[in-house]
Amino acid sequence: MALITFLSDFGEIDHYTGVIKAKIHSLNAEQRIIDISHHIKPFNLPHGSFVLKSAFREFPEGTVHLVAVDSSSRANTNYIALKLEGHYFVGADNGLLSLISEKEPTEVIKIDTSDSSVHFAEKEILAPIAVKLANGAALSEVGSPFSDMKRLLNKKSRASRQKISGHVIHVDQYGNLITNIELRDFEILSKNKKVSINYGRAFSNQIHKSYDSVVHGESFHIFNSLGLLEIGINMGHGAELLGLDYDSPVTIIFEE
Amino acid sequence: MALITFLSDFGEIDHYTGVIKAKIHSLNAEQRIIDISHHIKPFNLPHGSFVLKSAFREFPEGTVHLVAVDSSSRANTNYIALKLEGHYFVGADNGLLSLISEKEPTEVIKIDTSDSSVHFAEKEILAPIAVKLANGAALSEVGSPFSDMKRLLNKKSRASRQKISGHVIHVDQYGNLITNIELRDFEILSKNKKVSINYGRAFSNQIHKSYDSVVHGESFHIFNSLGLLEIGINMGHGAELLGLDYDSPVTIIFEE
Amino acid sequence: MALITFLSDFGEIDHYTGVIKAKIHSLNAEQRIIDISHHIKPFNLPHGSFVLKSAFREFPEGTVHLVAVDSSSRANTNYIALKLEGHYFVGADNGLLSLISEKEPTEVIKIDTSDSSVHFAEKEILAPIAVKLANGAALSEVGSPFSDMKRLLNKKSRASRQKISGHVIHVDQYGNLITNIELRDFEILSKNKKVSINYGRAFSNQIHKSYDSVVHGESFHIFNSLGLLEIGINMGHGAELLGLDYDSPVTIIFEE
Repeated sequence: MALITFLSDFGEIDHYTGVIKAKIHSLNAEQRIIDISHHIKPFNLPHGSFVLKSAFREFPEGTVHLVAVDSSSRANTNYIALKLEGHYFVGADNGLLSLISEKEPTEVIKIDTSDSSVHFAEKEILAPIAVKLANGAALSEVGSPFSDMKRLLNKKSRASRQKISGHVIHVDQYGNLITNIELRDFEILSKNKKVSINYGRAFSNQIHKSYDSVVHGESFHIFNSLGLLEIGINMGHGAELLGLDYDSPVTIIFEE
Repeated sequence: MALITFLSDFGEIDHYTGVIKAKIHSLNAEQRIIDISHHIKPFNLPHGSFVLKSAFREFPEGTVHLVAVDSSSRANTNYIALKLEGHYFVGADNGLLSLISEKEPTEVIKIDTSDSSVHFAEKEILAPIAVKLANGAALSEVGSPFSDMKRLLNKKSRASRQKISGHVIHVDQYGNLITNIELRDFEILSKNKKVSINYGRAFSNQIHKSYDSVVHGESFHIFNSLGLLEIGINMGHGAELLGLDYDSPVTIIFEE
Repeated sequence: MALITFLSDFGEIDHYTGVIKAKIHSLNAEQRIIDISHHIKPFNLPHGSFVLKSAFREFPEGTVHLVAVDSSSRANTNYIALKLEGHYFVGADNGLLSLISEKEPTEVIKIDTSDSSVHFAEKEILAPIAVKLANGAALSEVGSPFSDMKRLLNKKSRASRQKISGHVIHVDQYGNLITNIELRDFEILSKNKKVSINYGRAFSNQIHKSYDSVVHGESFHIFNSLGLLEIGINMGHGAELLGLDYDSPVTIIFEE
């Protein structure tokens, strides 16, 4: 039996997460469920996809990821399941699952939901499919091939010889600003050049090795465990102190 | 071994939930515990009972629900356990458990707590009883029959041929307003009549099929998965935008 | 296989807790993980140590406590594991683990981390060690003896015949103020004397038996389940209403 992970924008003041877990356990009392987060901002696909993208590969292959972000029952919503990088995903066809990898899913199916009276799709549609997949069902057993999955585009950084232009794609709980500027681009382009990192009204010539390469209250610029440029204030709230937020532009300029 | 669910107003900045889980595992290392929520508003019995009522039936019969809402040790508090609709509940006799079903418990016992020095009743009294019940003990083994359980009354909607008058009983994390107006009453009374849904300064003639039957920013009125009238704003925070809150009156008027 | 508990200042809007759990499950799919809290205030060692200290002894002996508070990868941070009161702890050598007991660890090791490129130490260093310990490895198998563990001092109360002077060491989610004034000191010193409890602009001559020994809205003073003086308002938010906060002084004066 594979693990089921559970990611949602359900929060914790309602019955929603409890009901989903109950449904799963009523279908398989022994099923293990790992919460990734239930604090995705309501309806926020970039937030949900960032967290899922940053976590899913750490789970064992074959894990089933139940994704309930902006997935409530709707007139025109399809529900899908797919296999991607050896993992299974179950969720609404709202585009979130198109954002978590640059690789293509090896298989996508549309879940058959003839019943138009569904009101809590995560419980009635997604949870049962997740349980089936965790117990070894093939995707082809739980739906029909689907080639028209909704696609969204991640905001990507743009790299040239002179600079890399990116954006803040996530503000974490410490106020650190995670950007879409990737270490692999930086390593290729920065060779033997002076670099200047520019954001808000600040700039710096330093890429640091760790969060505390600067003294308390100073800004750091590191490539983090995701291989992404992260900006923050050592022991401070970077977003507030630097006046940056989700989507703020960040640029690295290379000088010969 | 049955599941134990855990619902509380403990929040997550303290040691309280950790201690309860530790106690349970120290009594049965293999016991599985499912968190329903620890974000019930402090001491808020209507909030706690709404979440429990909306979730418990989804769990397998025989599940033990440990309820720690406004249950701290007190001079005059009794602790009870009961069986209701095939589920077990353990908590303080503060009325919450009288609100979760219109059915009567098939058995209620008062937990013997001779020790007046108890300071953390959820750990010292409730958790051990939950473990015993989950491991198959009968209610009669953990306490004495109790016929004087505290009763509270759910605020009910009132239905006549002309109208159904109800209230908001829960504001969910999206700002949607869940009322105590029930689909079964509506279906009987609305036949061949025009309906008018009235709340705050707004009204509508439409019951919708799903959250997105209206465009973004418009209000919807659906009967949700609980069979209750739910009002909100598609992709918006209904409570704020409509100026409604817990206990706000909502009325459906039927016109011949 | 022992339990792993997980305490952090990671919050729940990021991928961090999910990644740690994923790492643990990828190393041992059957490992059980109990969340103590992920809402320790960022970098707050006193908060983290209070919660851990108040909860760990309730778990079965042999439990492994994974502590990720202010533990991010740094140039000069050591990571340690230790055995204390029959429990195992894994975390950064930042002083937190020196605050959770007055007893000395029976064994402390420093985890070998030759790899300077570590960016997410909780995942890359702490989680694998926790899994090994939970599966029966000896401390000596996962690191080298370490005698130079960082020590911090808990703010202790001072007791004399005339008075006990202490401080608020934790404000809980209800607004109750937990102090470092201990019942055992109080019991020795208070014999046959009148007591006066002083804090902010208030004082009282009463130690109460339970939270509701006073009417709603009145202040209570009890020795709680931790054996510590706790001050609050029955059904109210003590910290706000009494104008007290973390570190506020509280004094008990004994009058002959």
